[in-house]
Order: sequence, then C-alpha cells, then structure tokens
Amino acid sequence: MTTRTVKLGQLTIGGGAPVIVQTMTNTKTHEIEKTLAQIRLVVGRGAEVVRLAVPDKPAALALKEITARVEVPLVADIHFDYRLALLAIEAGVAGLRLNPGNIGDAKKIRQVAEAAGKADICVRVGVNAGSLSQEMVDKYGHGAEAMVQSALKEIALIEETGFTNLKVSLKASDVSQTVEAVRLFSLRSDLPQHLGITEAGDIKSGSVRSAVGLGILLHEGLGDTIRVSLTGAPEEEVDCAWEILRSLGLRQKGPRFISCPTCGRCQIDLPALLAQVKSLLSHLKTPLTVAVMGCAVNGPGEAKRADLGIAGGKARGRLFVKGQSLGSYPTSELAQKLADLAREMADLDK
Amino acid sequence: MTTRTVKLGQLTIGGGAPVIVQTMTNTKTHEIEKTLAQIRLVVGRGAEVVRLAVPDKPAALALKEITARVEVPLVADIHFDYRLALLAIEAGVAGLRLNPGNIGDAKKIRQVAEAAGKADICVRVGVNAGSLSQEMVDKYGHGAEAMVQSALKEIALIEETGFTNLKVSLKASDVSQTVEAVRLFSLRSDLPQHLGITEAGDIKSGSVRSAVGLGILLHEGLGDTIRVSLTGAPEEEVDCAWEILRSLGLRQKGPRFISCPTCGRCQIDLPALLAQVKSLLSHLKTPLTVAVMGCAVNGPGEAKRADLGIAGGKARGRLFVKGQSLGSYPTSELAQKLADLAREMADLDK
Repeated sequence: MTTRTVKLGQLTIGGGAPVIVQTMTNTKTHEIEKTLAQIRLVVGRGAEVVRLAVPDKPAALALKEITARVEVPLVADIHFDYRLALLAIEAGVAGLRLNPGNIGDAKKIRQVAEAAGKADICVRVGVNAGSLSQEMVDKYGHGAEAMVQSALKEIALIEETGFTNLKVSLKASDVSQTVEAVRLFSLRSDLPQHLGITEAGDIKSGSVRSAVGLGILLHEGLGDTIRVSLTGAPEEEVDCAWEILRSLGLRQKGPRFISCPTCGRCQIDLPALLAQVKSLLSHLKTPLTVAVMGCAVNGPGEAKRADLGIAGGKARGRLFVKGQSLGSYPTSELAQKLADLAREMADLDK
Repeated sequence: MTTRTVKLGQLTIGGGAPVIVQTMTNTKTHEIEKTLAQIRLVVGRGAEVVRLAVPDKPAALALKEITARVEVPLVADIHFDYRLALLAIEAGVAGLRLNPGNIGDAKKIRQVAEAAGKADICVRVGVNAGSLSQEMVDKYGHGAEAMVQSALKEIALIEETGFTNLKVSLKASDVSQTVEAVRLFSLRSDLPQHLGITEAGDIKSGSVRSAVGLGILLHEGLGDTIRVSLTGAPEEEVDCAWEILRSLGLRQKGPRFISCPTCGRCQIDLPALLAQVKSLLSHLKTPLTVAVMGCAVNGPGEAKRADLGIAGGKARGRLFVKGQSLGSYPTSELAQKLADLAREMADLDK
C-alpha cells in the first residue's frame, strides 16, 4: 500500500517521495555551538533531517537558538516527560519523536498533539522493542505484534484530536523482528514509516546489521525515511544510510564505486589506488559510476560499463569513459587522470 | 524450492544445511608460506571454505603442498585456461570454480568435468555479469537473464558427462541485478547457490552493499554458501559474512553485541566501553547476546533481554544476567565484570 504524504519542514515524506536520510546528534543538546557544529557536519555529509535528544529543560530551551540557526528540519526526541515536547514545539522544531512506551497517559499525549497541530509540525510515534509499556508486554509479549499494537494505540489517541501529520517507526535490535513489525504495520496503516535497526552495534557490525534490515525492507518498497543507528559518529550513520540507498538504486549522490576484491590475480595495490580515487572525487556531487579494477578477468567488462573506469595491469592500466577505452597509462597517473575526467563530466552535467 | 545437496570436502552444502562462509586469499598462490599463513588467519576468523586464484602454472602446482598442509576445503579459481583446472584437480583441491564466460569450448569443459568426477570434487559454475561471453551478451543482453542462461548452458554441458556435484553463483556488482538473477535461477534449477555481490568496493561501502544484497536473498531462504567480496583484507570479508548471517539468526558464533547509538542522553563514553567489552570477549566462541547500553531509556529494557547486559549511568552502571540485575558497579569495572560473567557462562556451556 502506498503511504500517505506528510510534511516535515519543507520536506515531503511518504507517498512514493524519495527516501529521506536522517541521523541524530550525540552532543549535549544544551551545548549549542557544539550541537550546531555537528548538525552542519552531518548535513554536509548528506543528512536531510537531524534529530536531537531532549532529556531535560536546558536541552529543550536550547532548541530555540539551534532551530533559528540551521535550515535542515530538526526533530526533538522526547521520552518520559510530555512538557519537554511542549517546550520543543514552542522552540520551533519541525518535528517531534514520541515514545509511546514511556510518554504517559492519554491526556498528556492529546495535549502534545494539539500543540503540534497548532504549530503545524510533524509527529513520529517511535516504538522501540526495548521500551514497550508493561501493559503492551503483558497483552502481546515482546514481539512484532506488541510493537505494532503499541504504535496503533498511540496513533489512535493522537488522531482523535484531529492531528494527522504523523509517521511511525518500529525498531528492534533484532533484524527479523523489525522486518516483521514494519511489514505488519504496512498492512494495517497507510502512515509513512521511518526505518531503523536500533542498538545495532559499532560502526563495523552496526552498518552490516542495518544494511541487512533496511535493505530487505527498502527493496520491498517499505520505508519513507531511514536512520542507521551506530555506536559511533553520526556522520558514519549518514554515509552508511546513503550507501544502502545507493546500493538499491533508490537515491544517487556522488560517485558510486565498484572495485574488485584483491585476489591473487591482482597485480597492483588496488586498495591504495581505490583510496586515492575516492579521495580525489570526495567532493563530487554528480552521480557517476566509477570502476576501479585490478585485473584482466572482470576488469575490462565492469570498467567498460561504468561511466568511468580503470582496469589495472602490471605497470600500466587502461582508462575507460562510457565504454570507450582511452588507452593505457602508467599506474601512477591513473587516479589523477580519472579524477580530471570525472570533473569534466560533472561540469558538463551542470 | 529446496536445493539439492552437494559435497565439498567434508562439508555438506545445500538442502537446508547451514549457510557456509567462504573467502578468497589475495596472496600470490605460488608464494606457499604466505598463502598458508593467510589461509590459517581466515580460518581462525571463521572461513569454512577458502578459494585461491590460479592464474598460472606455478599457482596450480603450489596447490599440491597447500592442500596437504591445511584441513579446510580449498577451491581453485580458474579462468581462461582449462589446463589449470586439470592441474588443480591433480593437486588435490576440494573444488573448482569455473567461469563459463571465458573457459572455452565444450570439449575442454567436458574434459574438466570428467576429471572432477574421477576425483570426486565439487565444481562451481561462477557467472559474473562483468565477464559474460559475447554470445550470451548478443543473445540476452547484460542483465539477469543473460547470467542465468550462461549458467544453465554450462551446467547442461557438465551434466552431460554424468557429473552432478555442482553449485552455481550469479554475481553482479549491481545489487538488484544479483537479486533478480539468483531468484530467477532458483525457479529453474535445484542446484545450491553461492552468493556474492562482486566488485562491491572497499571495506566500508562494500560491507554495506554486500549486506543489502546477501541480506535480501538469505532472508528469502536463498543461498547455500556466501562470500563478501571486499577491496581489502580477506579476514574482513569473513567478519562481514558472519555478521550478515548472525543478524538474520542463520548462524551463531561468539557474542552478538547490541549497543545503542550515542545520543545526547548518553552519559558515558559508550564507544570506548563497547570496544573494551568486545576486545575482552574476542576469543569467546559461545553464542551470547551482550547488550552495552548508554542510558536509562532503552538500556534496561534491552539489557534485560540479553544474556548479559550493561545499562550505563552517570558514574555507575547496572549489570544484568538473563534479565536479573546484579546491582550497580563503578563504570570502570563494568567491562571486566561482564567479561568474567561471560567466561563463566561459556564454561557452563561446555
């Protein structure tokens, strides 16, 4: 089922709109300059929505200055205390994330919904398998059904007030449970879904687990916004999110690299060559497919089908532009030559 | 459809057997000691099958000593020259990988199949979208259908000789194309499939793209063996492969970590604590779920459901064992305390 469309700041979410990349700052939100610096950093890497923790009043009050000084839509992450939600709305955030497991009674939730309606902002009901209410756990256990019921109950409460600019997230640290919950919810509601595998681990493990879980769902057409949760820097979350979207052809930003594993056939230092090419092209925004290949087996084939390609050889390698060989060059010149060509192609694209 | 069962050395592949983790060495195969050292390294990390490039006669001849000195099943990767396949069989490999795009005419392929049959080894027909034969490209284009047809043609040739201990791989650098080819093939043949996204990129990008592609297929029940192809060290491929399998609950090996992203609510240095716990538990083979959480929101919930857990606080954190709190401890003691408990649980498991 196609999801309904909601607004988050200037962004349209759901209804088949491009999947949006989110992340979350890990600064103390009340440390305004540090938080602003991190927001700018992640926006530069491609974050399109940034969430901030709002654990207390100083954090909620700091949002006023922070929202005034950035363009990107900001979302306040609220747990336990509905009054922090009201303060965040006053401060001018574009969205709220509420956790139904801990936000409290119906009256408080309605009060937040009414304030959000007046401010015309977006609310995400963010269910986390690790913080379900005792009532839900007693009734439905710890699995996907409990997550979905928890979301539906909170949504019904909010929609009673006439507020509809809602999205939902159903996150667990278990990939299969998350996949099941997101699928189940999509059969019962047309609300846009924000996807994430929560508590996924450090950069190395967490990227893989997030890619598996989000990859399965996005490939099925589920998910309108995504966040990769890593125990690490938020800019790593953004890089990983873009790589997931890029790998499925859902979004393009900058070069997509294909490069072969370094097997015993490889006659050049391929990781070094690839790192050099990546670094030279790091500021390129134009989507280009760039092949950096080490040998004569798969090299020429893949390199020919890319926008730009290198097929390495012993001391010299071949350069390809859209299937046409430009001849062979010494290995030491390959990366710079390719970067020059990439910039020319990017300029043509403007 | 359930795949048929084939044998690779002592391993059973297909027919619902556990998904097997493969990697490929990137040493010069004829450098025997270096190659042996790398095989031992990757086997220590969890590789269950190791493939070696056989680009020339010295590589093929080196296989004799290499196969004699390791236990793990070795697969010779053959391109272009069928005589290298015959030499590898003589040298005692457990399997061959043949590329139908470049191995040559039917007579040569039959000769290899007959020798493989006599030696009772396994053959993988390894199709790569980047090295399809011109005939296949002319007839079916560059997409999934051409990959499947290329595999089916080669398989038919080999099966004519009576040889059936076969598996197949259909790899492209494009995730969607790989997914399509693997699904298509599974509808037309019961041969076990080896999965991989080829030329996936460096460790950071390639892990994510492999996780997306292999995750989608494995979650559908497709795939009997896997290799993550990275432009990087083969042991990184093995780590990533295990993380993919672990994330889907398909295989377990050692601790599975869940840990939260470091948001503004976090009051401890969580990446440091997680790295410390991971390092202390790195030699543990027993599957345990270990939660390392930074705050009071999702922390206690997730930590309680793990086998072992830490929920961090300001200067002290709480330890959990199978849902039971063991009380609070100074932050500096948490990792060691948890590691001691993990070792106790692992010993009980023996």
